[in-house]
Amino acid sequence: MPILISPMKKWSRSLLSKTVILGVDPGLKATGYGVIEVVWQPDRRIRLLEAGTINPKSRDSMPLRIDSVYKNLKDIIHQHAPHLMVLEKLFAHYKHPTTAFIMGHVRGAICLLCAHCQIELAEYSVKRIRKALVGNGSATKQQTQLAVAKVLSVDPSKLTLDASDALALALGHAYMQRL
Amino acid sequence: MPILISPMKKWSRSLLSKTVILGVDPGLKATGYGVIEVVWQPDRRIRLLEAGTINPKSRDSMPLRIDSVYKNLKDIIHQHAPHLMVLEKLFAHYKHPTTAFIMGHVRGAICLLCAHCQIELAEYSVKRIRKALVGNGSATKQQTQLAVAKVLSVDPSKLTLDASDALALALGHAYMQRL
Repeated sequence: MPILISPMKKWSRSLLSKTVILGVDPGLKATGYGVIEVVWQPDRRIRLLEAGTINPKSRDSMPLRIDSVYKNLKDIIHQHAPHLMVLEKLFAHYKHPTTAFIMGHVRGAICLLCAHCQIELAEYSVKRIRKALVGNGSATKQQTQLAVAKVLSVDPSKLTLDASDALALALGHAYMQRL
Repeated sequence: MPILISPMKKWSRSLLSKTVILGVDPGLKATGYGVIEVVWQPDRRIRLLEAGTINPKSRDSMPLRIDSVYKNLKDIIHQHAPHLMVLEKLFAHYKHPTTAFIMGHVRGAICLLCAHCQIELAEYSVKRIRKALVGNGSATKQQTQLAVAKVLSVDPSKLTLDASDALALALGHAYMQRL
């Protein structure tokens, strides 16, 4: 297991020559994730380490589906030893309360993983992330996907929308850090 | 660590002389829990093993608060080795979507604990539980508390509403098992 930062301690970017950031877009059907490495000196350079989607088996029970997300993300954390995780800010979707409630289950398991792996958690609203990345807080998922693919020099068709949403969170955090 | 039943295997009551049931009422401010032991032969006898409330520190971060519920329940599971856990059925409170969303976080961590401790999960609607216990699906929390206290021969003032709701789930499950 890689060495992670001390329990919930705020990391100071100025002390690190590079930062590994894990963005996660939780869902019971599909949880997107993306890991980037940001080198801060002499100028900011960003590299994609890994991105993808976790799809728990729909025939499995809720505990097993949630555990599938937990286990897969735990493996990714052990592999890349991110300095922090970025999630979309707590937001109850008033139009889709049942979906939000179920998504809350997965988000809870991911928060727990942060505690178990002693990773700091950062949260941003989708609007703020899209504003930082696309220049427009109301940008669509597709526009965000294109912006993510361009920044990371990857083929946008190779990124699922869940993975690009997760990468957007990680990238947005990197963009919002001032030198 | 006590020996638990095999992974997610349906337990057969007829094969067990007694059953230990853990009921949980999840919440970020307060998670109620109650453990009962049901002896089935020669006639059904029910005994309270432990009940209480977990109150995560409100100044802690979401990951630490969820982990507090997870760790405390894990200790209770290791102590009493329940055969199954009972939760209120998935239900998005349309009137309080934010509360439901946050409660979903805690419920997700509890579902994950079921997977990690290989405990079967049973779910019932509150109406069904109250109908089985009080004889009225629309009974209040207070009426449920009195019924729980009577069945378990404990002073109702010693049970919090969260703990009695959790015990009601465990008792309701025991009541709904036919001989």
